[in-house]
Amino acid sequence: MNKIKLPARRFEDIPTSGGIRDIVDMADRLEAAGRTIYHLEIGRPDFDSPKIAKDAAKKAIDDGFVHYADMRGVLELREALSRKLKRENGMDVSPENVTVTVGAQAALTAAMMTVLNDGDEVIVPVPCFGAYPSACAMLGARMVPLKCRLEDGFAVRARDVKPLVTDRTRMIVINSPNNPTGAVIPRSEMEGLADIAVRHDLLVLSDECYEHFLYGSEHVSIASLPGMSDRTVTVGSASKTYSMTGWRLGFMVTPPWMTSYANRTHLLMTTCAATFPQYGYAAALDGAGDDVRVMIEEYRERRDLAAGYLRQMKPLGFANPEGAFYILISVEKTGMNATEFCGYILEEAGVALVPGEAFCYPGSVRMAYCKPKEYLAEAMNRMKSAVGKLA
Amino acid sequence: MNKIKLPARRFEDIPTSGGIRDIVDMADRLEAAGRTIYHLEIGRPDFDSPKIAKDAAKKAIDDGFVHYADMRGVLELREALSRKLKRENGMDVSPENVTVTVGAQAALTAAMMTVLNDGDEVIVPVPCFGAYPSACAMLGARMVPLKCRLEDGFAVRARDVKPLVTDRTRMIVINSPNNPTGAVIPRSEMEGLADIAVRHDLLVLSDECYEHFLYGSEHVSIASLPGMSDRTVTVGSASKTYSMTGWRLGFMVTPPWMTSYANRTHLLMTTCAATFPQYGYAAALDGAGDDVRVMIEEYRERRDLAAGYLRQMKPLGFANPEGAFYILISVEKTGMNATEFCGYILEEAGVALVPGEAFCYPGSVRMAYCKPKEYLAEAMNRMKSAVGKLA
Repeated sequence: MNKIKLPARRFEDIPTSGGIRDIVDMADRLEAAGRTIYHLEIGRPDFDSPKIAKDAAKKAIDDGFVHYADMRGVLELREALSRKLKRENGMDVSPENVTVTVGAQAALTAAMMTVLNDGDEVIVPVPCFGAYPSACAMLGARMVPLKCRLEDGFAVRARDVKPLVTDRTRMIVINSPNNPTGAVIPRSEMEGLADIAVRHDLLVLSDECYEHFLYGSEHVSIASLPGMSDRTVTVGSASKTYSMTGWRLGFMVTPPWMTSYANRTHLLMTTCAATFPQYGYAAALDGAGDDVRVMIEEYRERRDLAAGYLRQMKPLGFANPEGAFYILISVEKTGMNATEFCGYILEEAGVALVPGEAFCYPGSVRMAYCKPKEYLAEAMNRMKSAVGKLA
Repeated sequence: MNKIKLPARRFEDIPTSGGIRDIVDMADRLEAAGRTIYHLEIGRPDFDSPKIAKDAAKKAIDDGFVHYADMRGVLELREALSRKLKRENGMDVSPENVTVTVGAQAALTAAMMTVLNDGDEVIVPVPCFGAYPSACAMLGARMVPLKCRLEDGFAVRARDVKPLVTDRTRMIVINSPNNPTGAVIPRSEMEGLADIAVRHDLLVLSDECYEHFLYGSEHVSIASLPGMSDRTVTVGSASKTYSMTGWRLGFMVTPPWMTSYANRTHLLMTTCAATFPQYGYAAALDGAGDDVRVMIEEYRERRDLAAGYLRQMKPLGFANPEGAFYILISVEKTGMNATEFCGYILEEAGVALVPGEAFCYPGSVRMAYCKPKEYLAEAMNRMKSAVGKLA
C-alpha cells in the first residue's frame, strides 16, 4: 500500500462501522430485494417544516438573499435567537455572541475544536450522541465516560461527576433531553453540575437540541444558572424543534471571551450557513409555536404507544423516556449482543434499529419513534412477534 | 485569567487580524459615519443566482425536500456533478466518489483533515487563498510556500516545486485559476506537477472553484492526467460559477480509497449540506450554461476596465490576470506596506481592498472586480486620484 493511501491518525479511534450507516446499508439491501422495512433507526422527524418557514425561505430566494451574508449568521436570525433565548431559556445573550451554524453538529465540533487541546479530558455522561466521542478522538482529547444506568432512568447525578474531575478536565458535555435515552436532567442536578464547573474552572458544552420535546419535565438551560454564562457553550438547532433537519441550521451561544475564536473555527469549517434558509429559521422562531405544540403532543402519544408495546416484550428492558423521541432498549437478557439483535430484528421483523455501540452503550439498541402512529404500531407488532420467538 | 479562557493551541499560528474581516469592519465604520465606500474587498459576485436554480430550490421546498437526505449529497446532484466532470473536466468519476459539501471551504478543510498528520509538509504556491495556511496550522501540518512572482505573471512552474519535496511532503495544493492573482497553470506545467506527484507518491488537492472564469486560457483538471485520479482531490463549488455563494454548496471528488474517510470527516464537521438547495445546484449544472457565459463575458470586460485604470497608476504593479475575478497589486513602490496602503485608499478614496498578508504575500493588495462596470469605474477613478497624490 502506498504511504499516501492512509487517513490521518486523528481518526484511528473513531469506528468506521457499527453505527447508523451500517444499519441503513443493510436496510437498503433488503428493500432493494423487495422487503418492507420499518425505519426506526434515524432521528429524522416526519412532519413537514412549518409553512411560515418555507414561505420565508422562498421569499428570501425571490428577494435575492442568495449571496454570502454576515459570516456569523444573518442579523435578523441572531436577533430572533437572542429573543428566543430570553423568552424560553432565561438567558440574556446579545446577538453578538450567537453564531448561526451548519446545524448543531457544526456547532458542537466547532465549540470543541475551539478550546480542546491534545490530552484534555472531557466528561461525557453515557449513553451519548456519537458526535461527542468522535470529536474528542479527532481532537486528541480524552473522553471520560460517566456511566448512567437504565435502573436509574439514565439519570445524570452531579455527585457521580465529581470523582471524575482531574487536573486535566476541561469540559463537561451535557445533553438534556438526551439522545438516545430521552432522560432529562432536573434543575437540582443542573445546579450541582454548575457548582462543579465553577469550583473546578470547567467549561460546559450543553447540547439542547431536544429542549422542546418534554413530556412533563422542565427544561433547564445551565447557562442561565449563576456564574455559568461565562463558562457555557449552549447549542441548539432548527432540525428537531421545527422538523427542519435538511435546512442545516443550528446555533451556538458562546461566552464573550470565546466568540471570535469560535466564529473563526466555524468559518474554517464551513465559511457560514446558507443565507436564504436562515430567513426561514427566523420566521419559525417567531411564528411556528403552534406547529411545535402539535408535534410535542403527537410525540407524546407515539412514546406512549411504543412504550406500551415494549412493556409486552419480556426480555427487553427500557426506562420510559421523559423527552426527545428515542427509547434506549436493553437487549442483555436476549442472549444477543446489540449488533446481533439489530440484525435479527431487521431480518425477522423488517424493523431497523441502531446498536448501542453508536452511543457508547453496548448491550442496548436505540429506537427512534418519530414516525406516524399506524406505522409505529405495525413496526412494534412485528418486533413483538420476532422477540416472542426468542423466549 | 482563568485557565479555561484560552482557545486551543492549534489556532495559535492562525492570525486573528489583518485579513478581510478588519477591512470590512473599517469600511463599516466609515459607512456608518456617512461615507460612500466602494467594496472591492470580497469575492462576492453581484449577479443574481440563475433563475433555473432558484425555481428548482423553491420547488424542492414545496415538494417537501426539507429533511436529511443522503449524507453524501442528494443522488441527483452527485449524478449531475459526475456528468459535469466528464463533460467539462475529462474526468471519469462515479457519483459514489463525489461528496456534496458545505461550499468549497468545507471540502478543502475536510480533505486536508482526512489525510494530514502533525508534521506533514504541504507545498502551496503563494500568493494563495487563506484557507490553505489556516487549515495547515489547525492540523499541525507545515505549509511549505512556493513563491510565485509578479514578474512571471505569478506562474507556477513544476521545476520550482521539485526542490521543495522532502520525505515529509504529503500534499501539493494547486488553485488554477488562482485566487488572488488570476494566474492559470497551463497543461505543460500541470503535467510536470503530475509527474512529481506520481514520482514522490504525493496527493494533490486541486481547488478549481474559478475553473469557468478564463479569458483565453484552457482549464486543465490535474485529476484527468494519467496516474492522477487515484491521488487527486478535486474541489469545486456552485458559489462563483453560478453566483450562488449563499447557497453553501460545493463538492469534492476523492480517490475511491479515500471516499469513506472523507465522507466521515465532512459528516463530523457538518452532517451534510442543506437538502433543497442541492436541487437548485443540480438544475444549474444541467441548465445554466447561458447564465455562466454571460457572466464570463462581463467579467472579462471588468478585468479590462480595471487593468486599464491600474496601468495609469504608476507606482502600482500588477500582472494582467488570465482568470478568476481578482487582481493582485504590488504596492512596494509606494513606500507603504499593504496594511498602510489599504488604510490610505480606504480613507482617501473610499475603496476597500485586502492586504496581501491574507494571501501569504506581503507588499501587495487584492482587488476583487466582481462589481458592475460603472461602480468599478467610479472606484478606479477615486483610487487613481488617491494614488496620484502619492507621486
